[in-house]
Amino acid sequence: MSRPGRGGSTYGNTRPELAAGTMTLPARHYTDPELFRAELERIHCDMWVYAGRTEALASAGSYFVRQLANASVIVLRDEGGGLRAFHNVCRHRGTLLCKEEQGTLPSRIQCPYHGWTYGLDGRLMNAPHMEKVEGFEESDYPLGPVAVEEWDGHVFINLSARPEPLAEQLGALQQKFRPWRMQELKLAERRVYHLKANWKLIIQNYSECLHCPIVHPLLQQQSHYMSGDNEAPQPNYLGGRMELREGVETLSMDGSSKRSRLPGLGEEEARHVYYYAILPNLLLNLHPDYMLTHTIWPLAVDRSDVVCEWHFHPDEMRKPAFDPSGPVEFWDMTNRQDWELSDLAQEGISSRGYRPGPYSNREDLLHGFDRFVLDRLAARP
Amino acid sequence: MSRPGRGGSTYGNTRPELAAGTMTLPARHYTDPELFRAELERIHCDMWVYAGRTEALASAGSYFVRQLANASVIVLRDEGGGLRAFHNVCRHRGTLLCKEEQGTLPSRIQCPYHGWTYGLDGRLMNAPHMEKVEGFEESDYPLGPVAVEEWDGHVFINLSARPEPLAEQLGALQQKFRPWRMQELKLAERRVYHLKANWKLIIQNYSECLHCPIVHPLLQQQSHYMSGDNEAPQPNYLGGRMELREGVETLSMDGSSKRSRLPGLGEEEARHVYYYAILPNLLLNLHPDYMLTHTIWPLAVDRSDVVCEWHFHPDEMRKPAFDPSGPVEFWDMTNRQDWELSDLAQEGISSRGYRPGPYSNREDLLHGFDRFVLDRLAARP
Amino acid sequence: MSRPGRGGSTYGNTRPELAAGTMTLPARHYTDPELFRAELERIHCDMWVYAGRTEALASAGSYFVRQLANASVIVLRDEGGGLRAFHNVCRHRGTLLCKEEQGTLPSRIQCPYHGWTYGLDGRLMNAPHMEKVEGFEESDYPLGPVAVEEWDGHVFINLSARPEPLAEQLGALQQKFRPWRMQELKLAERRVYHLKANWKLIIQNYSECLHCPIVHPLLQQQSHYMSGDNEAPQPNYLGGRMELREGVETLSMDGSSKRSRLPGLGEEEARHVYYYAILPNLLLNLHPDYMLTHTIWPLAVDRSDVVCEWHFHPDEMRKPAFDPSGPVEFWDMTNRQDWELSDLAQEGISSRGYRPGPYSNREDLLHGFDRFVLDRLAARP
Repeated sequence: MSRPGRGGSTYGNTRPELAAGTMTLPARHYTDPELFRAELERIHCDMWVYAGRTEALASAGSYFVRQLANASVIVLRDEGGGLRAFHNVCRHRGTLLCKEEQGTLPSRIQCPYHGWTYGLDGRLMNAPHMEKVEGFEESDYPLGPVAVEEWDGHVFINLSARPEPLAEQLGALQQKFRPWRMQELKLAERRVYHLKANWKLIIQNYSECLHCPIVHPLLQQQSHYMSGDNEAPQPNYLGGRMELREGVETLSMDGSSKRSRLPGLGEEEARHVYYYAILPNLLLNLHPDYMLTHTIWPLAVDRSDVVCEWHFHPDEMRKPAFDPSGPVEFWDMTNRQDWELSDLAQEGISSRGYRPGPYSNREDLLHGFDRFVLDRLAARP
Repeated sequence: MSRPGRGGSTYGNTRPELAAGTMTLPARHYTDPELFRAELERIHCDMWVYAGRTEALASAGSYFVRQLANASVIVLRDEGGGLRAFHNVCRHRGTLLCKEEQGTLPSRIQCPYHGWTYGLDGRLMNAPHMEKVEGFEESDYPLGPVAVEEWDGHVFINLSARPEPLAEQLGALQQKFRPWRMQELKLAERRVYHLKANWKLIIQNYSECLHCPIVHPLLQQQSHYMSGDNEAPQPNYLGGRMELREGVETLSMDGSSKRSRLPGLGEEEARHVYYYAILPNLLLNLHPDYMLTHTIWPLAVDRSDVVCEWHFHPDEMRKPAFDPSGPVEFWDMTNRQDWELSDLAQEGISSRGYRPGPYSNREDLLHGFDRFVLDRLAARP
Repeated sequence: MSRPGRGGSTYGNTRPELAAGTMTLPARHYTDPELFRAELERIHCDMWVYAGRTEALASAGSYFVRQLANASVIVLRDEGGGLRAFHNVCRHRGTLLCKEEQGTLPSRIQCPYHGWTYGLDGRLMNAPHMEKVEGFEESDYPLGPVAVEEWDGHVFINLSARPEPLAEQLGALQQKFRPWRMQELKLAERRVYHLKANWKLIIQNYSECLHCPIVHPLLQQQSHYMSGDNEAPQPNYLGGRMELREGVETLSMDGSSKRSRLPGLGEEEARHVYYYAILPNLLLNLHPDYMLTHTIWPLAVDRSDVVCEWHFHPDEMRKPAFDPSGPVEFWDMTNRQDWELSDLAQEGISSRGYRPGPYSNREDLLHGFDRFVLDRLAARP
């Protein structure tokens, strides 16, 4: 049996004592559509949110579309090789420009309705029949810009009018995962889950492992649930690392890896799985031989989609015997176990008998997350 | 042709004259979601509501779950043989405890998420990892109690904080049906119907037989629609009895019974069918040889579920030739005829042309029911 | 290649210059359920709306039912040969009277619930068991009347309490299409489309052909998109005519007609297709050999049904070789192209990036329509 890990200066297995009477949030945070909209405004529409991988934007014209709150956003690679993001709405009569979730644009974005045409830099290039309109200038009608930045292969967008730099939001995270060389990894599998649960329940579920021995027996076999060493909660992320038990190489159906360790990792990193909730919508899981990402898309106060993606090193993926099924099936099973509980939590919290309940000291990250939410809601807009 | 029955002191076939201008309710009582929520609070959540039969709670740990308004309630038999009801919500993080509609619990209720464990008496027995939390006492976190009582085999629950005794709500009803020995009867068939109608339309449909010759020709063949003798409307129930025509033994597809009369019944009772709306959600139909119950579950201002159950004497059910299909098919057909009209009433009342209309004197119970609803809404909370 | 048509005094191909800064409507006109309800009240429930054809009301008792806003309306032919319209709601307990969309009534309308019976003139003829109710008079409870009028075979209804004559609403339209003898034409095909778009987007799509070369290549082959000659916007209708290219006989899959020209038409009319949006819900397309009608039924702020019907001359329909498939398939394809764009416009306008955009001069009818909507909303109720 694996012993709980011993934290260095960053990680600690002994949790701080929460103040007496530290409780879960009131029900309205999980049931009130108005409060949900306020959260989207103050959190998702005012922060950098994870949108996808640069791998999907390989060459000029490659794009994907993301829906966040009521925004539809095109993220693309422009002709200078830069990343761009725009509101997916024609400036003429408001038609949605790209209806596919991803694809490749020619060097222009043309509206399917009346043919208004934009460059990949968003500038309006052609607006048929507008030339006779008094005072009309094409330069007045570019696509609505959305901020976009990259971090180690991850693409983030920001809907706010005056976004801070992504680096400020990420803080110490930006350097922490350099050894994994995340930007080199490639997508092998993608699964989408539809939850009947508020987005916060997914992050809360992710941020503690007290439920693991009950809900995830296979995970518990491969990593002891008390081995999780958390960092103290950070302003914009919450996370830590858990220790693989002796003989376990990675989290997979049988605990074996069949792949080389990611090239930049040392012994210490290879004995742990790192779990970070990068607020508000990316759950990043770093294993010795693969990276798992969950992207959380809030749809309604009681409905969320989660996109789960498995990324491996391209050297491994090129091997004829490459087989991601061990990690894929392990996490697909674990995901389904977690989502069922998240749905049950939504149902219970929505019901008349719910009262806020007490957190244990090992739910420190959840309390940190609740404070993050409350602080954001309380901040002046 | 059967003549209208002649009432004794309790029952009367001659209806009182309603006051001039006695009209149906305004449309908003059938269309306004806010008024619907107010009704649920002032009526369903402040009264005893029928939940099921003790038969389903035979031994320690037997339970069923009911959803009423936004409450999910576990009703169970405890280890001392008593009935208990609790909010189906864990006191830790609000997870729904029982997700099946019925079943048998071991001697504990364990939350599927983090394993908080409660006794069948609702006391918190085990809360993992909480022992280090300052000021935490298990005794502070029992399951939320819900009042529960039994009447002749019928289980009622009450969500209000200070419920009056069930006997007070039932009033004279409590003794009226002793001869039927309802607690001895057993369930033979259960059918669930999904209506696009407000819950009140179902009770109103049930409370008059003027529609019977038009809508229910088979019922009309077996009991004349003018034979219904009503009691004067009572505070919490509305009902009466109708006479079986000569040669008709019970209400069934062919009017025959093939079963012994229920053992406690006399001649008078065996010639009638008793119909009582036990407010707010139980429709009780007593036949010479079986008991029919409809339970009405309001889901939205324009949507309700009705659970229809057929109960027979166990002596009859033990016979190899026992066949409930005559009553089952008779009432399934009659139910469908009624629900179609209830749905049409909902559609018409929701439409722009609706104006309250006049009741006839034979719709006295409906007017009594409308007053019950208005009085409840007007009462101080 | 066909040259743009040359307008006479009525029609003009050269469009007036719109004032600088003439823009599309703010998003709330397409997304706010309250504003949608206000539009229905101020526009659809306060004007004559197209309901169907007299052909469907051939003899006494023929009826159809239409749903508009929250009204359900029966339109029928009475025994004197006149048209009548009534709220489809029984005056007793509000039951919907006719549940089929069309049919033939015996000389009475009987409620399916309790048998209250009305004449085809709406008078209450029989109300069972009401005779004993003090003060009850059948004459006090006729069906709620709805105004109905006919124009050249088209039936219009008006839900307002004091409707102006239909002729006033139609204005000059009433005489304009005499040569087509619309009242003689007969229905050959009917298709219903379900759109995820606000009703106004359908009228806006209909009122310009700038999108035709991009979206409707076959239409563009048969009539040049710049050939549309519009009338100046009228108070209650918007329209014009487009020229058929040389060699094109009508709009159909191959541009041929295979039918005689409608008997009343001259050379000039036979070389054009006339397109009129008769506000608020009828799109009338007159071809040399057939009439196409689109009826728009708003269902929600972002949902509409469109009923498309193809009407031909009965002399042609009697011919054994009569085949409407050319026009039917042409317009079914064109409809689908238009509805896809209307749905994309709804999606784009509903999204965060939408801003009102500038109209070109060739979108003059759309601006006229927007003003019609704003004027109606601003008018005192």
